[in-house]
Amino acid sequence: MIKVGIIGATGYTGVELVRLLSTHSKVCLHAMTSRGDAGIKVGHYFRSLEGVTDLKFVTPDDPTLDECDVVFFATPHGVAMKDAMRFLERGAKVIDLSADFRLQDPAVFKRWYGIDHTAQDLLKSAVYGVPELYRDSIRNASLVANPGCYPTITQLGFAPFLKAGVIDPHSLIADCKSGVSGAGRKAELGLIYCEVAESFKAYGINGHRHHSEMVQELNKIVPSSLTFTPHLVPMNRGMFATLYAKLNTQMSLDDLQAILLSAYKNEPFIKVLGVNQQPESRSVKGSNNIQYSISLPETALNQLVILGAQDNLVKGSAGQAIQNMNIMCGFNENEGLKQIALIP
Amino acid sequence: MIKVGIIGATGYTGVELVRLLSTHSKVCLHAMTSRGDAGIKVGHYFRSLEGVTDLKFVTPDDPTLDECDVVFFATPHGVAMKDAMRFLERGAKVIDLSADFRLQDPAVFKRWYGIDHTAQDLLKSAVYGVPELYRDSIRNASLVANPGCYPTITQLGFAPFLKAGVIDPHSLIADCKSGVSGAGRKAELGLIYCEVAESFKAYGINGHRHHSEMVQELNKIVPSSLTFTPHLVPMNRGMFATLYAKLNTQMSLDDLQAILLSAYKNEPFIKVLGVNQQPESRSVKGSNNIQYSISLPETALNQLVILGAQDNLVKGSAGQAIQNMNIMCGFNENEGLKQIALIP
Amino acid sequence: MIKVGIIGATGYTGVELVRLLSTHSKVCLHAMTSRGDAGIKVGHYFRSLEGVTDLKFVTPDDPTLDECDVVFFATPHGVAMKDAMRFLERGAKVIDLSADFRLQDPAVFKRWYGIDHTAQDLLKSAVYGVPELYRDSIRNASLVANPGCYPTITQLGFAPFLKAGVIDPHSLIADCKSGVSGAGRKAELGLIYCEVAESFKAYGINGHRHHSEMVQELNKIVPSSLTFTPHLVPMNRGMFATLYAKLNTQMSLDDLQAILLSAYKNEPFIKVLGVNQQPESRSVKGSNNIQYSISLPETALNQLVILGAQDNLVKGSAGQAIQNMNIMCGFNENEGLKQIALIP
Amino acid sequence: MIKVGIIGATGYTGVELVRLLSTHSKVCLHAMTSRGDAGIKVGHYFRSLEGVTDLKFVTPDDPTLDECDVVFFATPHGVAMKDAMRFLERGAKVIDLSADFRLQDPAVFKRWYGIDHTAQDLLKSAVYGVPELYRDSIRNASLVANPGCYPTITQLGFAPFLKAGVIDPHSLIADCKSGVSGAGRKAELGLIYCEVAESFKAYGINGHRHHSEMVQELNKIVPSSLTFTPHLVPMNRGMFATLYAKLNTQMSLDDLQAILLSAYKNEPFIKVLGVNQQPESRSVKGSNNIQYSISLPETALNQLVILGAQDNLVKGSAGQAIQNMNIMCGFNENEGLKQIALIP
Repeated sequence: MIKVGIIGATGYTGVELVRLLSTHSKVCLHAMTSRGDAGIKVGHYFRSLEGVTDLKFVTPDDPTLDECDVVFFATPHGVAMKDAMRFLERGAKVIDLSADFRLQDPAVFKRWYGIDHTAQDLLKSAVYGVPELYRDSIRNASLVANPGCYPTITQLGFAPFLKAGVIDPHSLIADCKSGVSGAGRKAELGLIYCEVAESFKAYGINGHRHHSEMVQELNKIVPSSLTFTPHLVPMNRGMFATLYAKLNTQMSLDDLQAILLSAYKNEPFIKVLGVNQQPESRSVKGSNNIQYSISLPETALNQLVILGAQDNLVKGSAGQAIQNMNIMCGFNENEGLKQIALIP
Repeated sequence: MIKVGIIGATGYTGVELVRLLSTHSKVCLHAMTSRGDAGIKVGHYFRSLEGVTDLKFVTPDDPTLDECDVVFFATPHGVAMKDAMRFLERGAKVIDLSADFRLQDPAVFKRWYGIDHTAQDLLKSAVYGVPELYRDSIRNASLVANPGCYPTITQLGFAPFLKAGVIDPHSLIADCKSGVSGAGRKAELGLIYCEVAESFKAYGINGHRHHSEMVQELNKIVPSSLTFTPHLVPMNRGMFATLYAKLNTQMSLDDLQAILLSAYKNEPFIKVLGVNQQPESRSVKGSNNIQYSISLPETALNQLVILGAQDNLVKGSAGQAIQNMNIMCGFNENEGLKQIALIP
Repeated sequence: MIKVGIIGATGYTGVELVRLLSTHSKVCLHAMTSRGDAGIKVGHYFRSLEGVTDLKFVTPDDPTLDECDVVFFATPHGVAMKDAMRFLERGAKVIDLSADFRLQDPAVFKRWYGIDHTAQDLLKSAVYGVPELYRDSIRNASLVANPGCYPTITQLGFAPFLKAGVIDPHSLIADCKSGVSGAGRKAELGLIYCEVAESFKAYGINGHRHHSEMVQELNKIVPSSLTFTPHLVPMNRGMFATLYAKLNTQMSLDDLQAILLSAYKNEPFIKVLGVNQQPESRSVKGSNNIQYSISLPETALNQLVILGAQDNLVKGSAGQAIQNMNIMCGFNENEGLKQIALIP
Repeated sequence: MIKVGIIGATGYTGVELVRLLSTHSKVCLHAMTSRGDAGIKVGHYFRSLEGVTDLKFVTPDDPTLDECDVVFFATPHGVAMKDAMRFLERGAKVIDLSADFRLQDPAVFKRWYGIDHTAQDLLKSAVYGVPELYRDSIRNASLVANPGCYPTITQLGFAPFLKAGVIDPHSLIADCKSGVSGAGRKAELGLIYCEVAESFKAYGINGHRHHSEMVQELNKIVPSSLTFTPHLVPMNRGMFATLYAKLNTQMSLDDLQAILLSAYKNEPFIKVLGVNQQPESRSVKGSNNIQYSISLPETALNQLVILGAQDNLVKGSAGQAIQNMNIMCGFNENEGLKQIALIP
């Protein structure tokens, strides 16, 4: 059993880490931090966790954190870059669920997050944590930058076709839809129930932080141009991506399906649906799976449409973080990640 | 005061026609039909209408229908094509909210709706009822085919730019999202609360009936190719369209905004938002307005994005039907259509 | 046309006042205040109001407010008691939607609202604004305390039976359920979508401010004891009350129904449903109506159950405020209040 | 490993049994039936179960069912009474999630369910499956009648106080609120999204089937009278009970809390909250827990209020069924029931 700490444990990714880790046979929760709620029992703060853990929230300087083998940062950006070294230098592994180590260019980071990157040395050693693309590097990493939810579902949707060279990398459109928990657990007027329920809108039209992350990753495969439109769906959890790309030449749906199946045939969490099936976000609610399907509309020549669904808090965040931990620690990759979606 | 009849008045478009018409100073509701609920007071069937009307539902053969000056068909497809002539031949005006007179090619109709078109003579005289595009023809029409909800918001979004010749008509993508009422008021497993709430999905991937209607209309402007992906949003009302088109040459956002503003500057129901604003569906919930905005993502060369929001039951259906009636009857176009969106 | 001002116009009751008043033939909106958003066009702040009014928000000291014939306070408690005199002393009428003038005992006010009442003279002249109970006093009032949403539906449900002397006034239970907009439009963690959606809970168990208001009003009829349990429903609008009272002696349902029908037979906004019908909140969504029904469970002797539904923002707040204005100003009582509920 | 069969596996309780059982170390799913969907892979029908089981639905006469050690009936009423003997006579255990064996009086059954009871011999041997009340009988049972969701939360709330003799058994009121999944997975107009969302209502006012079940069980403790008002909440899962009872004599909250704590101190799934805390349904969403709290409103003498929250599909149905199986089979009672609630 390894000891695990969670820094910033009162947000939705924090409580989700606890939910998932509590089923993990190789880890025990050892420390959970909250500046504002230190001293309060975790099971009193989140009633869903009553009886799950006896821990109380501690402040981030608590010495129990220094006993942890793995530390998750479930904090806003700017925290992990300051504090990660404390754990790394004594040999612990760090998985950062925030954006601090995702963007490899500090100037891009500053543009989108508004602050200087103060840990550029660490940045060089950080591995971008999409296991399906970078599993070998993750295995040897001490510091993993856990990807954003939009980038995860978008790059895993486009990657097989970009790698196969069958789509025009400058024709990419990602029309994405997210449940509200993607915005975090914070008191903002725009997030209150009556501002969100029974409505639908796009947001981040003039630039969303995840766009730069997506482009960075797509460019690793081949130089690409991407139009990204995020939307807010009145639901708690779930993310849906409708991805558009132009085929370089006419191809059959079966040939395209073969590319997708081949790419993910050994992946435990990527489910490729049949050509007459489509994902829906509820089918992965609470699970670490992504479902993809593809179609070729007959009415628009050479237009590939890729549909994807994931749970933004699981494969889009806490679940992928645990998947990364499993790889880093040599555990079975699906340990702690066997949850089945909650229907309805 | 003219007399108005509604055929098929127990659906969502039926009750919405009543809600809107009850504020109309020039009409009185005279007959509402329901085969299954004939004899029941409308205000008992829909409690929201108690005290609004004393009418009882009648069967479609009721003679009061023959006293109506305007008859709305709020029926499934296949009904209006059989029964419209009964009213037209005595000089009444007919507005069909179903699909029967939307598609001018009977073969296309049969392909998508599965039945033969049995009123092809009437079809030739039917006017497609988007006032912003065909106001003059509507003014002189006896039979108006009220458009589908998706086609309304999609064609009004693309039309100004297609007419201006600034976008490639073969690059069109309509990524649309609809509230659940768009599927009608019927007992289907796929529509029950627990199958829809807290989930998001695409549907109609292998062909949606509205696609043929959109293409027919876009082709009237210029031959076009359109990829159309409809999605289901867990909310009662509202429709959002994210429309993508490639510019033929580089243009400024201001020049594109000028095209849109010019196209709709005299339109009472089309609201063009400023370049830093975006629509949200709740801002038009219950009203006959469409809101549009445009953007040019800096990261994808020459990609125009048009955002639109409407209420699928108002501008997407019953409201536009009343707008058409107002034009056909010489009333003020906004009579009965002054409702303000319900926030929240 | 009289001139109307709204103080604190960026909340849900503020925007609802605008929606309703825009259909009122005798008033024009003249001033709307917001400290934080002064200078912004109302129609830009609330996109639903674009084209409805050209007003910009002003600060509360703006002189246009002093030109208003009627001033609505849609503010948190503590504001109206300071500022109402400014308008009253020059003869304007004031309708306070906050709690400042509801509780006639300043000590009770202080206990529940935590501040001293600084306008006790005004308090004596304030009329509690439930038209169905106090219409004559309202007609002559300059200052009306618009009731809370829970007290409105609760007292109007119990009142006919208390007045008739058929229920035990010490057996009263009000199990009430409110949509989220009842909590106002403010950035609080407990109100964000993901804390509210897909959940149900009671709140205010150890005392809710509206309890004292209800007891004050019930006691005016007959000394009463009331158990009040408010609950939060994951929906924007709507309030439902399940009211329990013990009959003093066995009575038939018909006799009880006759009491209710008699009490409200001339009331335009109180709808008494038949004995086999029950209210649902959506049937009054956006309208000023309350629906009531009663039942006598066969299994519990002499237990009367009263069910009621209203829109918390209309009859529970802004609509009742306009109803009060209409009475104070001698307008038709339903002017501006003819909206039909939005289904679905 | 024992073999388990589920009859009627396409409903919400069926898929929930699969979700929970898939984490159970002592059972393997061996047969799942569906008349309408026989031959279809379970993982294709419910996409959430893809990869969880390779089973296909079979018809109820499939021989694999006869190999099962435990058979769950997740069917409408009327099925289990016909088919249970097939499994019981060869020594298998049967747990019926329907109502067939809940009501011990066949006349009461016929009144509420409209059909004759055709297995009255079996009825005598059936054990009512609330483990917290009847654990010893369940241990030796072959046939368990799994309770209804409303009866579970209501009787477990009242029982400790009835047993302690501190409340008047003729003063009981159960004001209950259920998520929509309680109505099952079926195509009914009243269950579609647009009839349910953004609304709240009571139902079953003139008699609900669960009332007779509650009274039967309360009467086992002490003869009781109960007023029961069920309501429908626009959410997928969750049930909340607000229970009212009159104290026989004045008591302190601490003494009452001691009664509740004592009753459930050894129960793994009953969580008694502190006197200043209240349950919310989301805190048990997906888990087998019930949370209870109590309060004594200061304003109504001797009125006890008990609040409870459970997941209607887990402790209210499939979870309790597995809890019963665990007891019948000698497994750990919480095996397969360790799921943590999904927040948000």
